[in-house]
Amino acid sequence: MSQTIPTILPPQSILDPRTTYVLHLADNALILGHRNSEWTGHGPVLEQDIAISNIALDLIGQARNLYQYAARIIDPKGELGITEDTLAYLRDAWDFRNCLLVEQPNGDWAKTILRQFLFSAYQYYFYGSLQQSADQQLAAIGEKALKEVTYHLRWSGEWVVRLGDGTAESHRRLQEALQDLWPYTGELFDPAAYETYNTDLAIGVDLSAIRSPWMEQVRSIFQQATLSVPEDTWMQSGGKNGLHSEHLGYILADLQFLQRAYPGCTW
Amino acid sequence: MSQTIPTILPPQSILDPRTTYVLHLADNALILGHRNSEWTGHGPVLEQDIAISNIALDLIGQARNLYQYAARIIDPKGELGITEDTLAYLRDAWDFRNCLLVEQPNGDWAKTILRQFLFSAYQYYFYGSLQQSADQQLAAIGEKALKEVTYHLRWSGEWVVRLGDGTAESHRRLQEALQDLWPYTGELFDPAAYETYNTDLAIGVDLSAIRSPWMEQVRSIFQQATLSVPEDTWMQSGGKNGLHSEHLGYILADLQFLQRAYPGCTW
Repeated sequence: MSQTIPTILPPQSILDPRTTYVLHLADNALILGHRNSEWTGHGPVLEQDIAISNIALDLIGQARNLYQYAARIIDPKGELGITEDTLAYLRDAWDFRNCLLVEQPNGDWAKTILRQFLFSAYQYYFYGSLQQSADQQLAAIGEKALKEVTYHLRWSGEWVVRLGDGTAESHRRLQEALQDLWPYTGELFDPAAYETYNTDLAIGVDLSAIRSPWMEQVRSIFQQATLSVPEDTWMQSGGKNGLHSEHLGYILADLQFLQRAYPGCTW
Repeated sequence: MSQTIPTILPPQSILDPRTTYVLHLADNALILGHRNSEWTGHGPVLEQDIAISNIALDLIGQARNLYQYAARIIDPKGELGITEDTLAYLRDAWDFRNCLLVEQPNGDWAKTILRQFLFSAYQYYFYGSLQQSADQQLAAIGEKALKEVTYHLRWSGEWVVRLGDGTAESHRRLQEALQDLWPYTGELFDPAAYETYNTDLAIGVDLSAIRSPWMEQVRSIFQQATLSVPEDTWMQSGGKNGLHSEHLGYILADLQFLQRAYPGCTW
């Protein structure tokens, strides 16, 4: 392992809305990817261990594309030493802009599957719309990611139906997971200031336009899965503005340990 | 928070047996103290939440005394910037010399209680003997710690009897905890090379001399608790020589995050 020069990262508070938007998308993908990677070697059967690990890799790959783009925006001439690694490994919890849904604990297989389904359905319509972004780089990232997410959505949707319309225990577990996770779905469509800013410039996705198709997709799968959607739920929010649940700190302690303990190390 | 000069810590491999011995004792106390601190705010009732948190504080206090002493040995003139914090926060898993017992997960209340009882009984005889050390500093630390450990032993022993001789469920849970933890008790009395070295110099405790009183104490409490000691158990070892279970890395990622992320920070 070799050492490179220390990096000075500009504080989140001075970053412009476009950079923040890219980091928000990258953080979503990184944190859910990390959560899924916790299953590697612990899946219920080998085939599904590999499936969830592959989804983790897809998400971390999306995060890489987005962090690389953010690094080029922040440090276009490479003078500050900012890279994808800097952005993933050297920002603290309050700088992360991921939604609360993706940092929720894995729980059992039903909860992990449901979290993936809710988020993949969101990403499916999100990236579908991002392909039309006035920002060519984001449009290209959206197009590439959509192919992966289409598979994630089908895989997780099939699992939701299998568990929901399965045994009494699998149904109960999935319904409990839904009670736990539903309060984190409101934030997906509740735009932060930097999202509205980018939507107004035709760079970002109009969340109000993708909410209905998302809800239809979710209701259709839930109907097949004999699940009932919780009503009148208090919706949690905060993650997209850096106000996270207690879980994110533990994720980062684990995820960032190597770069924190051995700054600038490379393979 | 202010920043201080970076510290260069000598690698564990060049540390002499006396320093390693002091670090071994400090690491035992720090890691068990950290494990107990994970209960803070999560105890079964308020009084016991406070009790286990106070035991955590006692153990971390013992760790501080021992790390401070080790820092004075390694860096007598304060030229290297090595302090108790350096030793607790900037060494990686392979440098830690704690026994495997103290890094085992908390599990349920029964498992935490039993781990505490097994280790407090060990510390009780250990510190009792360390008071006679030819090293005046270690003798003083042993004398101070023994007062605390006497209480820990009484408290945890009473809980072992209460749970073991309690309901069918509490008995079952405690017996399961004993199956889990017993394989880690052999290492307590299996001397590492640096322990033998210090015992020969009348600095360290003769582990063979405290094994019998420990076993008598344990058997007496287990009899009252209607617990049966597992027989012919394969005994795990390695921690005292830096070969740890997977758990220590996660403990350190959590414990060391602040100093790793903000090197040299102070309140």
